[in-house]
Amino acid sequence: MKIALLQLNPTVGDIAGNAGRLIEYVKKAKSMGAGLCVAPELYLPGYPPKDLLLNKTFIERGLAVADRLAEDLADCPPVLFGMAVPNKSGVGKPLYNAAVLARGGKITASFYKCLLPTYDVFDEDRYFEPARGASSFSLDGLRLGVTICEDIWNGTDESHRLYNRDPLRIFAEEKTDCILNLSGSPFTIGKQAVREALIRGVARRFHAPVLYVNQVGGNDDLVFDGRSIVCSGPGEIVARGRAFSEDIILVDPENLPAPLPEYETEPEEEAFGALVMGTRDYIRKCGFSRGAILGLSGGIDSALTAVVAAEAVGPGNVLGVLMPSPYSSAGSVDDSLQLARNIGIGTITVPISGLMDAFNAALKAPFADAPRDITEENIQSRIRGNLLMALSNKRGALLLTTGNKSELAVGYCTIYGDMSGGLAVISDLPKTMVYRISRWLNANRGGIIPQAVIDKAPSAELRPDQTDQDSLPPYDILDQVLHLHIERHLSAPEIMAAGFDKKTVGRVLDLVRKSEFKRKQAAPGIKITDRAFGTGWRMPIACDLSVLKMTNNGKFRYGG
Amino acid sequence: MKIALLQLNPTVGDIAGNAGRLIEYVKKAKSMGAGLCVAPELYLPGYPPKDLLLNKTFIERGLAVADRLAEDLADCPPVLFGMAVPNKSGVGKPLYNAAVLARGGKITASFYKCLLPTYDVFDEDRYFEPARGASSFSLDGLRLGVTICEDIWNGTDESHRLYNRDPLRIFAEEKTDCILNLSGSPFTIGKQAVREALIRGVARRFHAPVLYVNQVGGNDDLVFDGRSIVCSGPGEIVARGRAFSEDIILVDPENLPAPLPEYETEPEEEAFGALVMGTRDYIRKCGFSRGAILGLSGGIDSALTAVVAAEAVGPGNVLGVLMPSPYSSAGSVDDSLQLARNIGIGTITVPISGLMDAFNAALKAPFADAPRDITEENIQSRIRGNLLMALSNKRGALLLTTGNKSELAVGYCTIYGDMSGGLAVISDLPKTMVYRISRWLNANRGGIIPQAVIDKAPSAELRPDQTDQDSLPPYDILDQVLHLHIERHLSAPEIMAAGFDKKTVGRVLDLVRKSEFKRKQAAPGIKITDRAFGTGWRMPIACDLSVLKMTNNGKFRYGG
Repeated sequence: MKIALLQLNPTVGDIAGNAGRLIEYVKKAKSMGAGLCVAPELYLPGYPPKDLLLNKTFIERGLAVADRLAEDLADCPPVLFGMAVPNKSGVGKPLYNAAVLARGGKITASFYKCLLPTYDVFDEDRYFEPARGASSFSLDGLRLGVTICEDIWNGTDESHRLYNRDPLRIFAEEKTDCILNLSGSPFTIGKQAVREALIRGVARRFHAPVLYVNQVGGNDDLVFDGRSIVCSGPGEIVARGRAFSEDIILVDPENLPAPLPEYETEPEEEAFGALVMGTRDYIRKCGFSRGAILGLSGGIDSALTAVVAAEAVGPGNVLGVLMPSPYSSAGSVDDSLQLARNIGIGTITVPISGLMDAFNAALKAPFADAPRDITEENIQSRIRGNLLMALSNKRGALLLTTGNKSELAVGYCTIYGDMSGGLAVISDLPKTMVYRISRWLNANRGGIIPQAVIDKAPSAELRPDQTDQDSLPPYDILDQVLHLHIERHLSAPEIMAAGFDKKTVGRVLDLVRKSEFKRKQAAPGIKITDRAFGTGWRMPIACDLSVLKMTNNGKFRYGG
Repeated sequence: MKIALLQLNPTVGDIAGNAGRLIEYVKKAKSMGAGLCVAPELYLPGYPPKDLLLNKTFIERGLAVADRLAEDLADCPPVLFGMAVPNKSGVGKPLYNAAVLARGGKITASFYKCLLPTYDVFDEDRYFEPARGASSFSLDGLRLGVTICEDIWNGTDESHRLYNRDPLRIFAEEKTDCILNLSGSPFTIGKQAVREALIRGVARRFHAPVLYVNQVGGNDDLVFDGRSIVCSGPGEIVARGRAFSEDIILVDPENLPAPLPEYETEPEEEAFGALVMGTRDYIRKCGFSRGAILGLSGGIDSALTAVVAAEAVGPGNVLGVLMPSPYSSAGSVDDSLQLARNIGIGTITVPISGLMDAFNAALKAPFADAPRDITEENIQSRIRGNLLMALSNKRGALLLTTGNKSELAVGYCTIYGDMSGGLAVISDLPKTMVYRISRWLNANRGGIIPQAVIDKAPSAELRPDQTDQDSLPPYDILDQVLHLHIERHLSAPEIMAAGFDKKTVGRVLDLVRKSEFKRKQAAPGIKITDRAFGTGWRMPIACDLSVLKMTNNGKFRYGG
């Protein structure tokens, strides 16, 4: 029997649309000879449905659509797909994260997720009651074990298992022929190697092939990369779904193809692919038919964002806006225009010196003789934010924010200014990664980003001769410290132990803490690292962290 | 033996400061004759510590400070207080939410929370491993049961218990003399009656007094109201802590005072108290020594926000900013100045017509002959946002946002415009509640808000003769629909069944859905209802909810 893994791109909330797409793909798989189709975790509501799951009508509509879907697929092979179903036991969370089997015109079986991730961006304990163990069903003489995403992820780190249960044990007892896994596993750089190692371990443990189908597509801050996996019983990868694209992977678990070579991709390539899909899907799923606009400063961040946007929705649907001030270098305009020509997007130019004068006049009395400070720089940035939002409003185009992760981490950005926009395309890209991807693009796309943009010293150009390094440590140092702090959860003493000097570490961590209020109001950004700001970063704002500055000998002073 | 409930106001993250405050209060309680002190849930790190709990050094520092604290309290009565401690079993989440007993110079016992709330604003499964059951300790011949917040909240609704366990059962078996509960229970309007009914039920079940100590103070979006409770074995409330203020409640569980009359408070009074404490603590704990500023529009929202701010930090620390445009009514200036005089805050006036002209000029070419639309209104609002932020930056004062919950729900507000600010004081107050509290204030504070502000038709004054009701249903209808949708989780068919017409309901729910992107970037607001936007409202942005418009007969069209 051939099994088709349907690697699909659902829209969150669009149950009827997702059902229609499933029917289309099941029919295609049927014509290819499939005897069973498998779609991803929570496919019907789209993943992650978040608090839509708390809406009773939303759940009921899902059940109604699933019944109709089963009926309409009566003459097709059985289909196993993910959806939320009510927990009717009267005890526990109101729902199960389920895989349901549509077979012969009806939903004939339901399988519930056992291990519910509740960390980073995941909140599954908020909605779901866990099942006690996985189970299986028989089809065409095969016993097929059903697991949902996290169910196969326990016990990867022997030193600390997250869950006090082994939901897969039954598969050894009942000699399961093949293990299915329905996933909604978000992309991060390097994730595929981790997944493949894990899945090979599961296959070897049960001496059974593992068929893993992952969602594809961007949903708000998360990008699902697809790259579904088929692994043989001896633990060899024999088929893979495409990255960042819908796909059907058809295999016969009793007659699997030959092993594939190791998966290879460059971090720059896969990160760029994730940003493009994340941007395209956000624009499409939000219903912006007029494309996107963004400010072009002549710097590398807006250049990369423009390239991503043009690739995502086509250059004809992207508008670059130049807003030079008296502090802008000549290069900022020339380089932006050159970039726009290279990628084929339109531009308009709106100089802001008149607006700066008008603000100076309006604030002359209230500011009296107060010395010039960061305030005046923020005013410029917010003038630009207002102009960009005005153009976005008038045209019905999405404003893309162009800030990177390093800036957002240390607050080197203006809230309501350059932070304005509906999607922060590169806000999970450290500055050093912005450079790496830009160089990779130039190597692979014929110098699309003008060399001057890559070579110039980074500057906000909000005062004469300003550069980022007036205010921040060199980016290669800064990004390493931030990586250890944000992604590795380390605090000052541990980062210093890794070889960074006390003053730099103290200053960087202080900046991170003090800019929490900005991140609280930041646009959603596309997650590509192990820990992004946004859904998976939940920090208090009004707090005092001087305790983290205690010396290692435990000295501190009581407050109160 | 007398037990002192220490109803304290910790600052999140400030372990050393919170420890110092605890020492101070324990000494005071000792001088009052206490034989045991009890402080709230997670008192040492402050509640909620959120993702600070993922920082290993933060946890280690907590352990070090707790040890020192125990030593320094060696000659004081035993103290039971909340903190996070590591789970060293090698399986499960990395921490326990613990109550630890400092006694005779050491931490001598730890008690772990059993039921971990993971809904609404709570994320405890993200951090903590649950204990299997509650336990107890003996002191001075009494057996004292220890519970932490949610531990006593299971089974209030017999039709659906959230947890599949009864962690308190042991108290019946071992005949516990007295049940202690360490809480971090956020304020909502009417919450105290719910708490008291619950606690009376627990006391009656075990025929034992319940001593409930709650945190007090504002931490970001949450306000903890204190109002700790002592309930006798027969289930009568015999002592209460103060609302919105630190307090010590000292009782002898074997010799409790006489029952108190039923708790009485008006919703307007307690909501105002919560807003004042929430605003005061946010300003103080964020370290804004220069107070607050806000825009005064002449409307009721900014008027109420100004009264709250003046009460929170003193009128001398609040600055009102008037920013009239050609569309502003004469009353908008006069009424604002009258309000400012009534409450004693300073004002400055920055007219914006020159800035509007400058934006018109800058955007003349890009807008060409496009007809005037909402864009021009947003530009005005964002000019004001820029001015307010400039004054906030220059003065080092916190900008308060003045929007209400009804506006935020339907998106009747401008992102980066009137939504600008660090704290959205009344963003969980429906417009009708803004009126109720304002009238209550006028009745109890001698007409502090000018009657004209209360009487005028609500208007954004962004175009000639505009009123809110041009764009929105009447607020009494709107607020009822929003209440059913947001706080009661109902969708269109259920709301219509409650008596609201289809067109209104459909329009309101559409507006709520379409403004999700604005709320994603909103300032934190003070939660006073059962469901606020913010931490407890986790909605996808890029989604399609047309499935909720399906008719009840289950008709829908597949998409895909």
